[in-house]
Amino acid sequence: MDSHGKTHQREHEDDVISPKPVALSKYSNRIELKTLLERSDGGARLAGKRVVIGGWVKSSRAVKKDSPAPPPQPSSAAVPPPPSTTKSNISCTEIIQSKMNIFRKLFDVLSGGGKTTYPIFDKPEITGQKATSPPEYTIYFLISDGSSVNSLQVVVDSAMSTIPATQLMSLGTCIVAEGVLRHPLAASAKHVIELEAEKLLHVGTVDPEKYPLSKKQLPLHLLRDFSHFRPRTTTVGSVTRVHSALTLASHTFFQSNGFQYVQVPVITTTGFGEMFRVTTTLDKEEKKHDGLSIETVKAAIKEKSRLIDHLKRSDSNREAVAAAVHDLKKTTDLAAQLEKKQKPKAATQKLDFFGCDAYLTVSGRFHLESYASALGKVYTYGPRFTADKIDNARHLAETWNVEAEMAFSELDDAMDCADDFFKFLCRYLLENRHEDMKFISKRVDKTVTTRLEATASNSLLRFSYTEAISLLQTGTTRTFKTKPKWGVALTEEHLSYLTDEICKGSVMIIHSYPKEVKPFYVRLNDDKKTVAAFDLVVPKVGVVISGSQNEERFEILDASIKELGSTSREKYEWYLDLRRHGTVKHSGMSLKMEHMLLFATGLPDIKDAVPFPRSWGKANN
Amino acid sequence: MDSHGKTHQREHEDDVISPKPVALSKYSNRIELKTLLERSDGGARLAGKRVVIGGWVKSSRAVKKDSPAPPPQPSSAAVPPPPSTTKSNISCTEIIQSKMNIFRKLFDVLSGGGKTTYPIFDKPEITGQKATSPPEYTIYFLISDGSSVNSLQVVVDSAMSTIPATQLMSLGTCIVAEGVLRHPLAASAKHVIELEAEKLLHVGTVDPEKYPLSKKQLPLHLLRDFSHFRPRTTTVGSVTRVHSALTLASHTFFQSNGFQYVQVPVITTTGFGEMFRVTTTLDKEEKKHDGLSIETVKAAIKEKSRLIDHLKRSDSNREAVAAAVHDLKKTTDLAAQLEKKQKPKAATQKLDFFGCDAYLTVSGRFHLESYASALGKVYTYGPRFTADKIDNARHLAETWNVEAEMAFSELDDAMDCADDFFKFLCRYLLENRHEDMKFISKRVDKTVTTRLEATASNSLLRFSYTEAISLLQTGTTRTFKTKPKWGVALTEEHLSYLTDEICKGSVMIIHSYPKEVKPFYVRLNDDKKTVAAFDLVVPKVGVVISGSQNEERFEILDASIKELGSTSREKYEWYLDLRRHGTVKHSGMSLKMEHMLLFATGLPDIKDAVPFPRSWGKANN
Repeated sequence: MDSHGKTHQREHEDDVISPKPVALSKYSNRIELKTLLERSDGGARLAGKRVVIGGWVKSSRAVKKDSPAPPPQPSSAAVPPPPSTTKSNISCTEIIQSKMNIFRKLFDVLSGGGKTTYPIFDKPEITGQKATSPPEYTIYFLISDGSSVNSLQVVVDSAMSTIPATQLMSLGTCIVAEGVLRHPLAASAKHVIELEAEKLLHVGTVDPEKYPLSKKQLPLHLLRDFSHFRPRTTTVGSVTRVHSALTLASHTFFQSNGFQYVQVPVITTTGFGEMFRVTTTLDKEEKKHDGLSIETVKAAIKEKSRLIDHLKRSDSNREAVAAAVHDLKKTTDLAAQLEKKQKPKAATQKLDFFGCDAYLTVSGRFHLESYASALGKVYTYGPRFTADKIDNARHLAETWNVEAEMAFSELDDAMDCADDFFKFLCRYLLENRHEDMKFISKRVDKTVTTRLEATASNSLLRFSYTEAISLLQTGTTRTFKTKPKWGVALTEEHLSYLTDEICKGSVMIIHSYPKEVKPFYVRLNDDKKTVAAFDLVVPKVGVVISGSQNEERFEILDASIKELGSTSREKYEWYLDLRRHGTVKHSGMSLKMEHMLLFATGLPDIKDAVPFPRSWGKANN
Repeated sequence: MDSHGKTHQREHEDDVISPKPVALSKYSNRIELKTLLERSDGGARLAGKRVVIGGWVKSSRAVKKDSPAPPPQPSSAAVPPPPSTTKSNISCTEIIQSKMNIFRKLFDVLSGGGKTTYPIFDKPEITGQKATSPPEYTIYFLISDGSSVNSLQVVVDSAMSTIPATQLMSLGTCIVAEGVLRHPLAASAKHVIELEAEKLLHVGTVDPEKYPLSKKQLPLHLLRDFSHFRPRTTTVGSVTRVHSALTLASHTFFQSNGFQYVQVPVITTTGFGEMFRVTTTLDKEEKKHDGLSIETVKAAIKEKSRLIDHLKRSDSNREAVAAAVHDLKKTTDLAAQLEKKQKPKAATQKLDFFGCDAYLTVSGRFHLESYASALGKVYTYGPRFTADKIDNARHLAETWNVEAEMAFSELDDAMDCADDFFKFLCRYLLENRHEDMKFISKRVDKTVTTRLEATASNSLLRFSYTEAISLLQTGTTRTFKTKPKWGVALTEEHLSYLTDEICKGSVMIIHSYPKEVKPFYVRLNDDKKTVAAFDLVVPKVGVVISGSQNEERFEILDASIKELGSTSREKYEWYLDLRRHGTVKHSGMSLKMEHMLLFATGLPDIKDAVPFPRSWGKANN
């Protein structure tokens, strides 16, 4: 493969595949399949071009070359019996399926059974008999390189590799092949273009006994233990590309609307709810002193001092004394560390990395408020953490939020911003991830495209918290676990009933929430009972965007912080400062990216929406 | 301000400021100053338009309205003595400076001294004398809203507000004003347009005694204790906008080159070096049981059990018994928790949130490799952490990296990618942050624009590690702390000498590094002594991009992991899996965003490049 890696050689290859050149993948030694397969002509006009492709085997079939069916011809016009229709012409032994445990049995039967693995291919030189040399196969691979939801059919002669055909054909094998693009030989073939391989430049084999993926479509929850392999499935590949598009779309939306990105900290001293602690003390103590008591160490010090005295008195050589002194020093250091360990909390804090208690952030909006009070409109996109011991399909310990904060803004502005942002994301996917959305509609959720289209083009239904409660009270005879009455927080059950049953679509619950159900920093309305917040709720998923106008009046915020208790006062001084000096009305919002992804893909479980999910009791890698 | 918040009113206002309409700021109730000040005509053709603006006072001057100088006229053509030239005409008492402690003294003098603050303005109704009613001032504000490096001059009549002029004029005061744009009255004025305010819609005052910023340009290191206010300084504002541009540019570069964004986890079980531990056990134990020994609690349980027996025997009412039983239950729970606390490490792990030791990630490249082995080209952008106890101008505990990983790629591909990415970022800033770069060149580092231009248009100098060592050995008579010889890691001192002295520019140290100076996963070269890595090093800053081809051969990676020790084996099984199944040559890179920002702005200290820096012994908010 080395000869294909250099830039000047790429240019040369670009010439080879002209007159309609296919762009080589930048920074890698092959053409991305997307470039071939997502053209308006499906790649038809590329027939005859020489290319290098690479990818992983999605499925494979082999046809014995001396089988009754004539081998497919490399010419493009002639139409011999195509691979997909030869099934009826050849015996079942000629169709090798990718799932190794199946074809292992098959080969065992063929070779007369026994324990030897791959008897036909593995040891031809040992048996030394020409008659038992491996039969030659034409292998039809479907190869995916993750650049597109579509795969390329690659036709390989088994003689091109010394690796047994069975092994080549395993699901997940990595193949880099050079060859010529051609129209498929089968008239009935659904694909427009395929590659006739001339050389295999690289094969990365699979150990099928241990490889967790299978040709059958596995349920997503079974894949979760193999988060490092699941992007090789078409569904997780598509979801990742949708996730990627939503990320760029988020940056694009905010920056094109005049927002500045601000990097807010992940390690923080402020926050609320169940938080993760960040520390360097826990680990060191455990590693170094496990089981050692201060008394034991002090006894050792006494013993070692006595030894040194003895060495000195007995006129030992200086090196021995120096070694003993060095050893004593280490023990006294250890004693000092153990003593520190026994100190009260304040001392422990000082010993910790930051010299104070530090946590993983639950929200970036506080820090954004500081930058909004200087730059006007700001946003951020980063990880947020909650240590609630909840394990369900909507909750993770680590999620990513897009958060925005705007000075000179009130609640309505944040609502408009959330509304526009939400629609922009839906539109962006429809326009930029057409192939993936088509696949997801087919495989995961039939309604997903129409849902995105409806969201992008219609107005969101908006009503108040009070109206929501009234709808829940009068709109149904159903009994909820938490009885809906003014003053209670809307539960997942309530929200789901509002969106899925009553409104049959996304809604925005706006304006005046009871003070008690929202955090302390949300702006108090004139009635002194309600606060200025909103939630954008979507069917089946729940809240995707939350927003609020935050309190800009010093006295009111100060009073709310006092209610939190005395320990909070000091850590919120900087936040109060923003109201002491040059305060301004401001509002903001926060989108939960994983929940947006659930809405956009119809996936039922958040653990399948995130590459490496972290949840209660689970952090794999 | 409420009447300006709604969308339909905005549209109406858009009409008012036509025929060359100035776009209203979306999602906030004012026009962004950038829209006025960064037009090609500097805003000249907007004279006569009515607008609402908002921002924070950067500086202010007041001219007494009955002073000998005629008050500036609202007409645009006539040129009365301009404010900037009236200085010579009026007495020093008429120039009020923004720094409160200065003009407090001034007013004390004017009002005959004494302890009363703002005697002239504060209590006119108390004195009841018309003669002591506050004199009227015309106040010239320079207002910034952070959308642009430039400020707008806003002319306000002190009578528009009941707030004393001195307080209005404080640096950092937030002002929202409605008025009409006009050409400046002073012929010599440098600005093209200013606002004659007709109404003050909002004033957010400052307590100048406590406000940390001052009109004088403060050294950046003095601002670090006030990270929540420093974006209000022009320099930090500019740096933030540059940071924001670099963020969008990074996403744009990778997505337009066919990379998919992948969200890699922040909480991880793999990693190397000094790491932060993430836990939920430490906090709870400290909070709940500080100082309580298991013996004390067990004694309490005995006591409480005895009480219950007594209550039952003495025929007390059922409620009292129930209360006592409930109380006992709480105590036995506490005892159980304390006992758990005393269990050995394995038990502690199980009690912790994830049921295993969890850390903050040091690099996303491992997880990216998994997705590259499925999707081909992937990248990510997220926070990375090291708990090294280092406190210097180049090191933070929390930094953000842009990382990319490419399958079917070798070292040269990653080098080309790094080279293109680096140049793309430089070019992007020159094209999209012209005003900020101009300001930064003036205020922070004169050479910054020419440096970006040179980088964007010239080839990067590339040489090998061996050549670098040879240059350090022969190119200078200087003595380094670490003697440069083949096999040692290049120190900051070495790198700085190479870029700043020998090459006078950025360099890429490429290809074969000694195996010992790079991490275990870097691909072993054929000589078995060196590995396939590179570093892009820039003057004054050091390494901005590091990259490598990572080991794709199972046996070699397996051997390297064995060398790490037995505890590592299990946690790297998933990483080895990528080589077991469908392995492929792949390479990648990692850009340190904060270091890129230092290069792009010339800032000398990383603590000024990040909004809320976290470093050893320091996490403010």
